[in-house]
Amino acid sequence: MATAPFFGLDEAARFAGEGSSDPLHFRFYDKNREVMGRRMEDHLRFAACYWHSFTWPGGDPFGGETFLRPWMQAGDPMTRAREKADVAFELFRLIDVPFFSFHDADVSPEGETLQGSIDNLNAIGELFEEKMAASKVKLLWGTANLFSHRRYMAGAATNPDPDVFAYACGQVKAALDVTHRLKGENYVCWGGREGYETLLNTDMGRELDQLGRFLSMLVDYKHKIGFEGPILIEPKPREPSKHQYDFDTATVFGFLQKYDLTNDVKLNLEQNHAILAGHSFDHEVKLAYACGLFGSLDINRGDDLLGWDTDQFAMDVKEMALVFHEMLKHGGFSTGGLNFDAKIRRQSIDPQDLVIAHVASMDACARALLAAERMLTDGALEGPLKARYAGWDTAENRAILDGRHTLEEVAARGRSLQPQPRSGRQEYLESLLNRYV
Amino acid sequence: MATAPFFGLDEAARFAGEGSSDPLHFRFYDKNREVMGRRMEDHLRFAACYWHSFTWPGGDPFGGETFLRPWMQAGDPMTRAREKADVAFELFRLIDVPFFSFHDADVSPEGETLQGSIDNLNAIGELFEEKMAASKVKLLWGTANLFSHRRYMAGAATNPDPDVFAYACGQVKAALDVTHRLKGENYVCWGGREGYETLLNTDMGRELDQLGRFLSMLVDYKHKIGFEGPILIEPKPREPSKHQYDFDTATVFGFLQKYDLTNDVKLNLEQNHAILAGHSFDHEVKLAYACGLFGSLDINRGDDLLGWDTDQFAMDVKEMALVFHEMLKHGGFSTGGLNFDAKIRRQSIDPQDLVIAHVASMDACARALLAAERMLTDGALEGPLKARYAGWDTAENRAILDGRHTLEEVAARGRSLQPQPRSGRQEYLESLLNRYV
Amino acid sequence: MATAPFFGLDEAARFAGEGSSDPLHFRFYDKNREVMGRRMEDHLRFAACYWHSFTWPGGDPFGGETFLRPWMQAGDPMTRAREKADVAFELFRLIDVPFFSFHDADVSPEGETLQGSIDNLNAIGELFEEKMAASKVKLLWGTANLFSHRRYMAGAATNPDPDVFAYACGQVKAALDVTHRLKGENYVCWGGREGYETLLNTDMGRELDQLGRFLSMLVDYKHKIGFEGPILIEPKPREPSKHQYDFDTATVFGFLQKYDLTNDVKLNLEQNHAILAGHSFDHEVKLAYACGLFGSLDINRGDDLLGWDTDQFAMDVKEMALVFHEMLKHGGFSTGGLNFDAKIRRQSIDPQDLVIAHVASMDACARALLAAERMLTDGALEGPLKARYAGWDTAENRAILDGRHTLEEVAARGRSLQPQPRSGRQEYLESLLNRYV
Amino acid sequence: MATAPFFGLDEAARFAGEGSSDPLHFRFYDKNREVMGRRMEDHLRFAACYWHSFTWPGGDPFGGETFLRPWMQAGDPMTRAREKADVAFELFRLIDVPFFSFHDADVSPEGETLQGSIDNLNAIGELFEEKMAASKVKLLWGTANLFSHRRYMAGAATNPDPDVFAYACGQVKAALDVTHRLKGENYVCWGGREGYETLLNTDMGRELDQLGRFLSMLVDYKHKIGFEGPILIEPKPREPSKHQYDFDTATVFGFLQKYDLTNDVKLNLEQNHAILAGHSFDHEVKLAYACGLFGSLDINRGDDLLGWDTDQFAMDVKEMALVFHEMLKHGGFSTGGLNFDAKIRRQSIDPQDLVIAHVASMDACARALLAAERMLTDGALEGPLKARYAGWDTAENRAILDGRHTLEEVAARGRSLQPQPRSGRQEYLESLLNRYV
Repeated sequence: MATAPFFGLDEAARFAGEGSSDPLHFRFYDKNREVMGRRMEDHLRFAACYWHSFTWPGGDPFGGETFLRPWMQAGDPMTRAREKADVAFELFRLIDVPFFSFHDADVSPEGETLQGSIDNLNAIGELFEEKMAASKVKLLWGTANLFSHRRYMAGAATNPDPDVFAYACGQVKAALDVTHRLKGENYVCWGGREGYETLLNTDMGRELDQLGRFLSMLVDYKHKIGFEGPILIEPKPREPSKHQYDFDTATVFGFLQKYDLTNDVKLNLEQNHAILAGHSFDHEVKLAYACGLFGSLDINRGDDLLGWDTDQFAMDVKEMALVFHEMLKHGGFSTGGLNFDAKIRRQSIDPQDLVIAHVASMDACARALLAAERMLTDGALEGPLKARYAGWDTAENRAILDGRHTLEEVAARGRSLQPQPRSGRQEYLESLLNRYV
Repeated sequence: MATAPFFGLDEAARFAGEGSSDPLHFRFYDKNREVMGRRMEDHLRFAACYWHSFTWPGGDPFGGETFLRPWMQAGDPMTRAREKADVAFELFRLIDVPFFSFHDADVSPEGETLQGSIDNLNAIGELFEEKMAASKVKLLWGTANLFSHRRYMAGAATNPDPDVFAYACGQVKAALDVTHRLKGENYVCWGGREGYETLLNTDMGRELDQLGRFLSMLVDYKHKIGFEGPILIEPKPREPSKHQYDFDTATVFGFLQKYDLTNDVKLNLEQNHAILAGHSFDHEVKLAYACGLFGSLDINRGDDLLGWDTDQFAMDVKEMALVFHEMLKHGGFSTGGLNFDAKIRRQSIDPQDLVIAHVASMDACARALLAAERMLTDGALEGPLKARYAGWDTAENRAILDGRHTLEEVAARGRSLQPQPRSGRQEYLESLLNRYV
Repeated sequence: MATAPFFGLDEAARFAGEGSSDPLHFRFYDKNREVMGRRMEDHLRFAACYWHSFTWPGGDPFGGETFLRPWMQAGDPMTRAREKADVAFELFRLIDVPFFSFHDADVSPEGETLQGSIDNLNAIGELFEEKMAASKVKLLWGTANLFSHRRYMAGAATNPDPDVFAYACGQVKAALDVTHRLKGENYVCWGGREGYETLLNTDMGRELDQLGRFLSMLVDYKHKIGFEGPILIEPKPREPSKHQYDFDTATVFGFLQKYDLTNDVKLNLEQNHAILAGHSFDHEVKLAYACGLFGSLDINRGDDLLGWDTDQFAMDVKEMALVFHEMLKHGGFSTGGLNFDAKIRRQSIDPQDLVIAHVASMDACARALLAAERMLTDGALEGPLKARYAGWDTAENRAILDGRHTLEEVAARGRSLQPQPRSGRQEYLESLLNRYV
Repeated sequence: MATAPFFGLDEAARFAGEGSSDPLHFRFYDKNREVMGRRMEDHLRFAACYWHSFTWPGGDPFGGETFLRPWMQAGDPMTRAREKADVAFELFRLIDVPFFSFHDADVSPEGETLQGSIDNLNAIGELFEEKMAASKVKLLWGTANLFSHRRYMAGAATNPDPDVFAYACGQVKAALDVTHRLKGENYVCWGGREGYETLLNTDMGRELDQLGRFLSMLVDYKHKIGFEGPILIEPKPREPSKHQYDFDTATVFGFLQKYDLTNDVKLNLEQNHAILAGHSFDHEVKLAYACGLFGSLDINRGDDLLGWDTDQFAMDVKEMALVFHEMLKHGGFSTGGLNFDAKIRRQSIDPQDLVIAHVASMDACARALLAAERMLTDGALEGPLKARYAGWDTAENRAILDGRHTLEEVAARGRSLQPQPRSGRQEYLESLLNRYV
């Protein structure tokens, strides 16, 4: 299989200017353009992901394969895996992303034994090393798939069977090893089965302890091998499980404190997971910064009217501008990036749909970044925010927050006050935001 | 106004046996019946609440008053407050509850100044002392209403205006003082406005620090005056705010750890708040025990198909049986109780509807308690649960959880395993549960 | 493959009395017990379904096969289909159901061409004839799967490609033919892909016209071949599509009126689909009767906290008692029945889990039927209902509803009135209901 | 009370160009600019509404008044009503809207009797006539509030008490009369209490018949008095009721067909009601056109993460561009308009917040209209749509839709086909849309 013909394209996507109407090129994403002291490419740090684009066949709970990808057809699994890698790196080139990401199970076939699976993974890891050297595409993060195989149906680290826990340790060690070898900048844990289907058969306290232990062991190992990037937890409230322990940012914050993991573990946040938990994407990002846990982002969107993970390509400039505004306030990504955990719709069966979707979403992100830059430079949102809380800046009021007054003292002061509320100015701020997006 | 005629009833509700069809008497609630070593009344510790039953006029966002309660009509506010207290204690007698609960603003009118409000509260506090002595009804908990008045529209402890914070300190100190005087067994904080309407005008990190400080001051004061009960936070994800900081059990756990409050602050959980956060009531209770934060319960139910707080009287025996089963496992309530944070529907305009609603829900609780007792005595759920996790009981596997093995060691062991999944038996357990309820 | 060993059971489930704790036998379902003049079996008319129990491998969007059924492994497809049929009829025997139901694609493999698929279907149809004769199990309904294959990804009748419409006609004709041959009592249409993923590429008006035409042709054909049962539409609001045209009962009522199909097409309702549309099961059933569209029921339940179709085995006696109460009021099923569109959880991997789940849910239904019978016999709900509307029974008020008064006339009368609201008595009615379940 | 000082503004909002940063003036709304042959003002037909802006005090279910409007304070009700009208018309001037809308209860106080209420309404009607003549502001629609007063707690037309039905007839007749006198272009019915709180006390079939009769009488009366505008039903699925009969467009379509009302009754659609029913705004509008029921729009937005009606000012250009695109395809509004059924947040307590909110939302609408115009002129969405269904344009395929083929004929043709699916191109279309907004 020659890969170039798969997409039927030679030329990689490039900046063509806002006036362009070619869906294969960018209108806003100009990777060398400087935004607050950094190249746009270095701000957005886009990563294509392996699973949705190369491993998902287009099925859903009520229907089968629609894509008919050549590398998913019958054949020698390792040969197929290499063909898949060829197409993947061809996509990375066509959409000009600096990073990619993968699960072990996306890139290499399951072996007869765990050792066989690890051998397969390492073989593909070698292939990746060559391709990465040739293409300059880097690894944003790697991860282990601890949720698809039936052995994990009742959880990996939280499984009632300690043998499954041990198996998961074997798998995750190998995935971190290969991530480290490929100079991955982060390592991600998504606990899709770390939760429950019914409380009737679940001991939550015990399972949380198991999960805490598993992560602690992983953190120790990461230090031992000198992996410098953070371990990232990816919160999601439910699906596939009825309830997942990494429900949202706030929940993970409580968990990490309990098991003393806040220094080494950070968050990989996603819009679609945020809304399934009842939060906006902006909320999750702001809370993660407030908790000192911001790490990286999966960039996609859910459908507000549907109750499951749709993982659509992110296209909403306003929503992302608010997220990037918060990020720019904090200096932007360090090891994190924008990982395209997004899948084309199962009806988007043309190979070029994959290219068009990435290009369109990268462009929406770039537009959002430029809007965020303008808002921050103008102090459009920061000015009113600072003014709103200015009353707390006096010495007397700072003293309260610093713990230098008792309830009685402050209460005594309160008894002489008649505080007058001030307008929250929500509509004004929304109108202001509309000026920028 | 004479109160007895308000309900048109003389006789208090009493146990009349399962065959009874009189909605004014109990079929299951037999307060002296022993359940696992304790009288039923001492297990369930029912409390009637002041706000829904005596302060809410029957309005909703699209309609006004329906109840036309005499004590809500024009007149001298303190006289009306005393009339209201008469009716309240008459209800407590008629439904035979051992406890009640209130907000400051439920029981006494707002004064011209904060000091005036406190004086009114203390005057009613004196009246309560007399009535409590005469009736033997005790105070489960008191609380301050920091959400209804416009001064709190942008929060109390989390307000951008420090004067509002100080005013709230004054109010909460007075409410804790009167709760202490009335020998209240707990003190509750519900932060209905401690959250935001829009992130555009909100600094979450700063507001969380304010809230942490506020609670720390309250805890210090509680210790100072010798109030022995816990401070209880009542989680709710949203409504009235778009987002509330006390979203759910897991969120509050993270917050309390950050501000070092886990020893003194516990949780008051509610079914309706649980489902608004996407959790079952059972989940919230089990998680609270797992986090060491279980305190008390508001007993009501929400409508699964509606997106707002309906606070209906709890009638679902199965749901409550699971909650009580968990409680019985842990020995039942200590200072907590079942507080009727439930309101009759706005169309239930007959005074006796109040009596009937409480009697029906107390009966459903009693039936659930008896079911829980039988399940626990039989080990119906505990037996299969213990068996499911039995693999972890070996010395080798306990060592993993105790932190005596590294990832590499466990991974090495995992490489030789082929773990075989076992049935989760969900339908069997559901069928088992149906045998008890 | 011999089928008996698959379940490891010989004895079929039988009535063992309420005191039984054997999950393989019934506590309430006593098929010969008379309920309002009919045998319990003839009231409930249970049907096992083919797809969930024999065709679904235990996968979900994040994980693969868990069940490892022998008949799903590699092999000659028709041989496998016959083995599957053996196991299916063995289950029917073990749980003692009088009916079953299937999609064409459940029972026989897809051929190279449509004609090949039809030939396969007819071959299995012959096998079914034999097995049905031997076992006395009847066919509640048949249907065609117009949603799983990629050709239907954009709809069957509503596809933008008329060739797909024609292909669907071929498939549905064959499925109705075999249903007719097997004396199926109904024919069902579920339009899982008759809807849209995005309005950006959808012409709703045109697609609704296509769907109207398709059904009209099907109705004409049914009359032509003398199929006497109704065509049943199964409403569902979404999933797999973002929006499905058969959203709920009310929507289908509008559609059927527009295309003049109300005489020949009725509804097959499902609890899980009801709640996804924001309705209770009881609502959908009552509305279907009010619209003259009640046909049959899929019996399962969804999870109130999840946003997708979980199709769990129905276990809630109260919910079903209300539905059966409405049915009994209208004389019970005619051609319809209770079809188990329910799947065991993917962790329920023991073959006996299938038996236990059916037995438990049949028992919950039986218990609900008995409760409904008692409520109806006592007039428990009907009495208060009639009393509530009694004011409309006067001649003057009937005249209004009969259209014998103008707005002005009634308005004139209204001007002299001061109507006084009466209590809705919701809590009383809920307490009453709790007496029966 | 002099009204001008209330807002502290003299100058009305005017078009100031895209570069303006003044929140009191328009950046896009240039009322005389021509859009597809019509002035922008004549396309958008903005109406300010009375209830949210002048009658709502800023309360919510957990808190009281925040706005402290002078005209809501104690005093002679009719004097207050006149003061309110002064402020209202001052706002209409300041935001330069061509229309307004009201409920009877918004503009005039309830009297001791229905006749007293009607007299009050007529007196204010006279005042409106003068103010409308002076200001050139017209009436988009009037309506009667049949949901706030306790008499309507169990419905108006659907009340179990026929006296309430008659009272509602009196009230609605008077409201239509005054609407007619003021040359209102439509008359609206919103049935906030036409539904149920619990099915336990509800006879749905009977109540639907009552509602059908009520509307039929209203339609007859409208014809009798020569009111030429349509009666508009406003769908909403729930809130205040648990379930409302006018659930959504599809439900109302079924209802109107049953009672033969499709000619005289159309729809007034709202974004917030759409999403509460699980639909996009665009869906409801497209379906209304497909059913021949499009009438008018309430312009606001809900919060996707909240389960209740927030009625926020619409600010989302993309969402509205799709709606206006559909409208422009059909020639734009006839009698309908964009009614601001939107309320400022309860924290927006400055009078100018009212002005800013309207200006910002009018501007967002104008921007959306311009985007819709460009998309339609370019055929951006229409071109691909037409191409997608082009297969149906052949004579052979048209014949199928025209009913000239039987199922057997089409099925026979289908048996020789192997239809190949084509890409749905969703990401491409989304990228295209992003080019325009």
